[in-house]
Amino acid sequence: MISSKEVAKLAGVSQATVSRVLNGAQNVRKETKEKVEKAIAELHYRPNMIARSLVMQKTKTIALISGDLENAFYSEITTAIINLATKKGYNTMVYFDNQPNREEIYEHIVSNHVAGIIQSSINLDEPMYDFFSESGTPYIQINRKHKNAGNYVILNNVKAGQLAMDHLLQLGHEHIGIIMGPTNVSTFLDRQEGCFQALQDKGKEMDQRFLKIVDTTTKDIEMAMYDLLSIQPHPTAVLCATDQMALTAMDVILKMGKRIPEDISLIGFDDITLSSHHAIQLTSVAHNIQQMGEIAVNSLIHIIEGNIERENYQQIKLEPHLAVRKTTCSPKS
Amino acid sequence: MISSKEVAKLAGVSQATVSRVLNGAQNVRKETKEKVEKAIAELHYRPNMIARSLVMQKTKTIALISGDLENAFYSEITTAIINLATKKGYNTMVYFDNQPNREEIYEHIVSNHVAGIIQSSINLDEPMYDFFSESGTPYIQINRKHKNAGNYVILNNVKAGQLAMDHLLQLGHEHIGIIMGPTNVSTFLDRQEGCFQALQDKGKEMDQRFLKIVDTTTKDIEMAMYDLLSIQPHPTAVLCATDQMALTAMDVILKMGKRIPEDISLIGFDDITLSSHHAIQLTSVAHNIQQMGEIAVNSLIHIIEGNIERENYQQIKLEPHLAVRKTTCSPKS
Repeated sequence: MISSKEVAKLAGVSQATVSRVLNGAQNVRKETKEKVEKAIAELHYRPNMIARSLVMQKTKTIALISGDLENAFYSEITTAIINLATKKGYNTMVYFDNQPNREEIYEHIVSNHVAGIIQSSINLDEPMYDFFSESGTPYIQINRKHKNAGNYVILNNVKAGQLAMDHLLQLGHEHIGIIMGPTNVSTFLDRQEGCFQALQDKGKEMDQRFLKIVDTTTKDIEMAMYDLLSIQPHPTAVLCATDQMALTAMDVILKMGKRIPEDISLIGFDDITLSSHHAIQLTSVAHNIQQMGEIAVNSLIHIIEGNIERENYQQIKLEPHLAVRKTTCSPKS
Repeated sequence: MISSKEVAKLAGVSQATVSRVLNGAQNVRKETKEKVEKAIAELHYRPNMIARSLVMQKTKTIALISGDLENAFYSEITTAIINLATKKGYNTMVYFDNQPNREEIYEHIVSNHVAGIIQSSINLDEPMYDFFSESGTPYIQINRKHKNAGNYVILNNVKAGQLAMDHLLQLGHEHIGIIMGPTNVSTFLDRQEGCFQALQDKGKEMDQRFLKIVDTTTKDIEMAMYDLLSIQPHPTAVLCATDQMALTAMDVILKMGKRIPEDISLIGFDDITLSSHHAIQLTSVAHNIQQMGEIAVNSLIHIIEGNIERENYQQIKLEPHLAVRKTTCSPKS
């Protein structure tokens, strides 16, 4: 593609001048303006992306609706998504789903005629799902999915839950706490189901006093961990629904003067980069976050480019594995 | 999809009138306006934002050129920027500056006629600075600035460097290592200058063996920390240019079986959320990251809306303070 650099060279002016002409600036000499316009015509340079979008009735823009970047899972997957999208020539507009005006954001995205939507933090019962799935805009869900399924790239979260609970059971824990996110989120519902299945397979049941279902805010997770510590005897192991939640639980456990793993074992999910830090060394149910982001971008671009029939849903499930580190051990006898 | 033609038909007005209503034109009778709005609501018409952008020759979109989100400073400030921009009715397109096709990205942003640009990771000698500063597109630099200054919101980084070095000197450290980022970045250049000034004020000089200037990649920081540990005797304190770099240095120090702070004190800059985690407790030169992001958005919108003369540069410098935690103490005698 012709760049403004080449236009500038042919016209014998600076790139900034070309840009000023394109933007209709007033302070450009008529003679200069004509030189630039001539070069543009000669090179068939088509600079105005908005005009081009209008002609093509779509933009080279992807909208990413993301969860809170304070959860490193989201900053890592957002990085992977934007890097690959940029490489493939797409802009990425980023929105957060925790905004009060969520409905407006969805309407806004669709009315902007983006080329596609990546939704990394949708709830099972999101009422706006129909709105965007029926808008005709290509979309893919990542990490979480809506109850109506559609296109998605997710982890096998039932398996992930089983792996985590099995690990604690095999270490010999009898009193296991769970800090789970809201179960109107597929990730959390499935991880919980996996935990329960693993218990059932060993003929055990979940002690309901030890099950805390909370919002994923730092404050709610802290409260849940304090609650678990206040039960006598307290659980000898705590399973948290994400590594980010486990980090918050760890903070509380250490603040209360308990040792990890000697007093309490701790396990999370996602294996964010920080989990392998020597000061953290969190045991985690691991998966390849970057790969998940890249699969989503590639699948979405396939859909955008019409390589996939609209009826053939992209439904991709990745497999987790266990990364055992220093926060889990057998309970003291 | 519903077109403005159908809206016009139902409202009994011309398409041009529908268009005038959508663009908020003043010369439309109240009665007409209401008829059009009623038709829009009835038909669930979503106006074509691309076409509207073309008419208005600008979009309600801000481009954010960000540093790597794996540095939690960038994920925290990006969160603050997007949250406030969304609240103010602006989309945020996010780009990373570590892409090989950086020039293309700049051209792309300007030719997309974004309303404004926030640049959070520019180098002092960025060759594309002139291109966007002269394009006429409103912009603001945040965190770092270009040598030609312009609009920016930054930390008083010289002061920050002084605070960090003073803290280590007051604890009695004589052998202080520095792991600094590239000095073609204003943040690092100024933090280094502050360190040197603090040393000079005490009649001391920097031991050049202990000064490591490296790229901010994990690998380079790890190498620098291994280098510092290999010097006999090794420094009793290490100052890292960011908290994220200090976390990497901490990982190496602990892996090598050294204790923090008993064997080596450690200090960083930015006070990211993780620094106050009980397993980390990093001493840091602190500032309000969220506030910095929000000031940038507000300033940029002021410029976009024409409330500020183009010649009146927005140049805002915030003040740091010291957050002393558990990674710094006096050296063993």
